Amino acid sequence: MKLFVRFFPVLLLLPFCKNTNTETTMPTQRPDYAIAIHGGAGTIRKSDITPEQEAGYRAALDTALTIGETILKNGGMALDAVTATIAYLEDNPLFNAGRGAVFTHEGRNEHDASIMDGRNQMAGAVGGVSIVKNPIRLARAIMEKSPHVMLSGSGAEQFAIENGLDTVAPSWFFTQRRWDSLQKVLEKEKAQQPRGQLKPSRFEDQKFGTVGCVVLDKNGNLAAGTSTGGMTNKRWNRLGDTPVIGAGTYASNDGCAVSCTGHGEYFIRYAVAHDVWARMVYGGLSLEDAAKQIVMQKLVEKGGEGGLIAVDKDGNIAMPFNSEGMYRGFAKPGERQVLIYQTE
Amino acid sequence: MKLFVRFFPVLLLLPFCKNTNTETTMPTQRPDYAIAIHGGAGTIRKSDITPEQEAGYRAALDTALTIGETILKNGGMALDAVTATIAYLEDNPLFNAGRGAVFTHEGRNEHDASIMDGRNQMAGAVGGVSIVKNPIRLARAIMEKSPHVMLSGSGAEQFAIENGLDTVAPSWFFTQRRWDSLQKVLEKEKAQQPRGQLKPSRFEDQKFGTVGCVVLDKNGNLAAGTSTGGMTNKRWNRLGDTPVIGAGTYASNDGCAVSCTGHGEYFIRYAVAHDVWARMVYGGLSLEDAAKQIVMQKLVEKGGEGGLIAVDKDGNIAMPFNSEGMYRGFAKPGERQVLIYQTE
Repeated sequence: MKLFVRFFPVLLLLPFCKNTNTETTMPTQRPDYAIAIHGGAGTIRKSDITPEQEAGYRAALDTALTIGETILKNGGMALDAVTATIAYLEDNPLFNAGRGAVFTHEGRNEHDASIMDGRNQMAGAVGGVSIVKNPIRLARAIMEKSPHVMLSGSGAEQFAIENGLDTVAPSWFFTQRRWDSLQKVLEKEKAQQPRGQLKPSRFEDQKFGTVGCVVLDKNGNLAAGTSTGGMTNKRWNRLGDTPVIGAGTYASNDGCAVSCTGHGEYFIRYAVAHDVWARMVYGGLSLEDAAKQIVMQKLVEKGGEGGLIAVDKDGNIAMPFNSEGMYRGFAKPGERQVLIYQTE
Repeated sequence: MKLFVRFFPVLLLLPFCKNTNTETTMPTQRPDYAIAIHGGAGTIRKSDITPEQEAGYRAALDTALTIGETILKNGGMALDAVTATIAYLEDNPLFNAGRGAVFTHEGRNEHDASIMDGRNQMAGAVGGVSIVKNPIRLARAIMEKSPHVMLSGSGAEQFAIENGLDTVAPSWFFTQRRWDSLQKVLEKEKAQQPRGQLKPSRFEDQKFGTVGCVVLDKNGNLAAGTSTGGMTNKRWNRLGDTPVIGAGTYASNDGCAVSCTGHGEYFIRYAVAHDVWARMVYGGLSLEDAAKQIVMQKLVEKGGEGGLIAVDKDGNIAMPFNSEGMYRGFAKPGERQVLIYQTE
């Protein structure tokens, strides 16, 4: 009942939402640390996935949480926890980031990533790189070793090489599953389009694969990071929200750290990650209300599918999404959850 | 005296600002239309410029205003006014956008641009194109003819060709002045850096050339656009704030339209264009206060040089900048100003 009263004003505002499932925690005092992760949002149905696949996703999310949590427990930096956690998710072929990235129209893998330090709003972002093993490490190197925030394409790859980051042959990123997805989409496109017109198919692969991590460390510092292979069959060196600071990633110690996943174009147009921060800092909302308003109201109203994870300076966590599922999890001292579907 | 009382609270907050020169207009009722433009901010001193050069800049800004104003007077769309005005500024070799763009470290011209429609937050952005005559037209084509917001590099050029945009040989963008600027910077870099270390020089060319336009049309619709050649001697396919929706450009009919110019990395990290909107919509500030707070307080405090132009849904205009000068102008029915320096 108490919970109902607490949520009643929000519920009143959400009669048309597809999904009001937004796990949140309400600590009475700031926890020692907090971490949340996501592995993408979209059409994720229990009926479409085998028990073995589901177990694989849950195990991978759990491992990712453990990697970040271990760093935090030992007093490590928020930025280090974000980097290590995302690097693991990039190396895991289950997720659409790093190894396991989806293919572009031309059959390539083009990776985007960004990271932001809540202490000072330093940020690094990279768009469209194909030979860097861990794009999140490149985003961090751009933040720490260049005067720039955002590098792209072959120039960003040159920067990676100059700065000694691990590079790999493009075949490192190949997975049969993603290749088959592209072929399926291309065939559909061929059947649908009149000859000679190669308009891109819109979001046939309705899973917006992205990985992300947001963290509050023992020193009260926030950080956020996001990494993705983008959209199956993407063309023209399309960049989504992941490498756009303010859209896919934002962090500022005076508010919150946010990482988004979903139909990137909407997340850019509504500057979603910065918007959550702004609703808190300028609008005086709680993290939970700020995150819900943009994901469950604004984006639902506009047709922008996806979700986000966020942690605020007091260790509150919000993970709203308006799609059928979102691979996600969070951990704080004494608390841990790994989730996929809307209700479980 | 009345003016002093009005500004007194703001003045109290600004004791350390380098520049509190922010022309604003306060109409009692919404004007039929309003347009503001900029041609870049930075170290622009009267002593560094000949009277002929100054007259050239003023004439170009005046012509740009006339182009946009004519469209607005005739009941044209905000988007059309923004596009035509910026295309003129791109074609004019005086400004660092289109023809007249600065050179990258490798001696190329790489253009970025973005545009946003306040009616529906549709947006288009392009980063790092070298053969498209008017990058602002490409940004608009991306918005209107692709399912994406942001394209980059050679993929964006391919999209431009497929969509029949004017392309030119890279030499179209060559100007002796910008070439000489690059040579000067490269020589300085060579002298300063130990052999083999080619760290980028930081902002030797302290003029952040960008062009931008914000508009309120007769139907009450807002639009914003920005275009640039970026930073002299930029490397690694660096992208600044210009192609980043939320950083260099933002527009939403419920608040304002914003176009930024300055040290792009800061404008990305503070999502400046979206921030002005958020301070208005969530924070309840006037356009003037919102724009001043981010440019004259936050950016000054953080060391981010530059400025912005903004128009709100009531036709108020703000043009704050914290650098020595900003090429700028605005027009409304019965009002028109073209300005360069802090005080004039």
